[in-house]
Amino acid sequence: MPSFQSLLNDTASSVELALSEMLEKQGDNLMSNPIRHAVLGGGKRLRAFLVIHSCNIFDVQKETATQAAMAIECLHAYSLVHDDLPCMDDDALRRGKPTVHVKWNEAIATLTGDALQTLAFELIACLPKVDADRKIELIKKLAKASGMQGMVLGQAQDIQAEKSERSLNLDDISSLQRNKTGALIEWSATAGAVLSDNSDKELLNYARSIGLAFQIQDDILDIEGDTILAGKRLQKDVTAGKATFVSLLGIENAKTRAKQLVEEAIQALSIYGDKAEPMRQVAKFIIERKL
Amino acid sequence: MPSFQSLLNDTASSVELALSEMLEKQGDNLMSNPIRHAVLGGGKRLRAFLVIHSCNIFDVQKETATQAAMAIECLHAYSLVHDDLPCMDDDALRRGKPTVHVKWNEAIATLTGDALQTLAFELIACLPKVDADRKIELIKKLAKASGMQGMVLGQAQDIQAEKSERSLNLDDISSLQRNKTGALIEWSATAGAVLSDNSDKELLNYARSIGLAFQIQDDILDIEGDTILAGKRLQKDVTAGKATFVSLLGIENAKTRAKQLVEEAIQALSIYGDKAEPMRQVAKFIIERKL
Repeated sequence: MPSFQSLLNDTASSVELALSEMLEKQGDNLMSNPIRHAVLGGGKRLRAFLVIHSCNIFDVQKETATQAAMAIECLHAYSLVHDDLPCMDDDALRRGKPTVHVKWNEAIATLTGDALQTLAFELIACLPKVDADRKIELIKKLAKASGMQGMVLGQAQDIQAEKSERSLNLDDISSLQRNKTGALIEWSATAGAVLSDNSDKELLNYARSIGLAFQIQDDILDIEGDTILAGKRLQKDVTAGKATFVSLLGIENAKTRAKQLVEEAIQALSIYGDKAEPMRQVAKFIIERKL
Repeated sequence: MPSFQSLLNDTASSVELALSEMLEKQGDNLMSNPIRHAVLGGGKRLRAFLVIHSCNIFDVQKETATQAAMAIECLHAYSLVHDDLPCMDDDALRRGKPTVHVKWNEAIATLTGDALQTLAFELIACLPKVDADRKIELIKKLAKASGMQGMVLGQAQDIQAEKSERSLNLDDISSLQRNKTGALIEWSATAGAVLSDNSDKELLNYARSIGLAFQIQDDILDIEGDTILAGKRLQKDVTAGKATFVSLLGIENAKTRAKQLVEEAIQALSIYGDKAEPMRQVAKFIIERKL
């Protein structure tokens, strides 16, 4: 079995190539370059990895899995482009490159995010080698995960938290983070079950644990991380005086909690045997990563 | 047969009620009020009218037609909220009410548009009493009409035109407007054919003609219209020195061209007999409207 790091790199490379070819096919127009800038050349492709390896558990065809992975990466890229806008987090750097509104302008950045959201739904609607019923199920779940009951709500909760006098407690930030980042991780990790019409119960338990662990690790890296390595601004939350898992639990307890969550995630996959090994490995990676 | 104006009002009222009930069911959270503000209480509901009455031609069930109409109104509302942002058209007034970024802020307006786009796709994925294949077809077409090959591209072309030294010619503004507003009108007017798995050829010809007529009339109203009646800022294009159908053709020729287009649209529907009468009436309305 190849090392986990090379599996992670290989999966990221194949998704990168597929995204690049898909965008090439769209032809060239005014939106092409900002969209390519936002989607290509970066990121851990964690969501894509979850989609592809959850699909492997259920023998979903590779072509189908790759396109579902592209869809979630487009959806994620849309959220980053809008989140980086001056009216939101106001970030100039993303994946080591200037953000879209810095390289172009705010109008183009708004439109880039808008078009990438559309593209995510289009890619699912056009999934090859899968029934329309399965596509519709994925679309419903993606809408629920990303809309006003999911990611967008999480963003709004985050903005309100910054303005509010009252500090958030652990329940508040757990809810906020489950909406803001957890919902898309859940969608990604359960995609294989949905596409093959199997129960997503175990994968959902797995995803809830790694989603929370992922956020705790993000909070740890916000303190201990390296800006150059991360390719984005760090210590944002500390500077903003925001409550995080680290500020509420302390850094050692936060690390212990993240480890417990990863153990729980690994347990949740026991019924799937060897086929779920990449999903177990990525759970461990989530709390070992440095960016 | 009821007068056209009462048919238009009745259709708008039933869509308004359906939208209000649908948003009620979403429950209350931080995003509810901005979303309701953006979607409810306004507009001619022209796109909804086209969906519902194109569905009537093919005996699509009322419940299905109404939900497809709600979807296109959510998509349209998303585009208006983002278009009104300071980085885009910077408008403070929409449908006689303050725009979302004025009443809340830019971050909430960005998120409101984002969530409304998601909701549009979700509503189609959840259409009652229709096969998954038909839903997927509508979703593909909506993505094509609204994304980087459609509405978003039209917005980007519009922004570029404002910055460019070179004035647009008739072909340029026809292309820009077909992308920016025409594509969604085409989606709406063909929805009934797509939902019933019939050819959309005639309805597509109809939609192309009324889409262009609609934009010519918008340019005429930008000059001759009444701000209070319109509930939005007028003479934007004149002030910005933008090329429009009126500036290129002259106002009388523009009116003549719009009339021809409406005649062509009405001709395109001849095979559908009486059932298409509301679609013919709305074509005439498009160039007679004062707002």
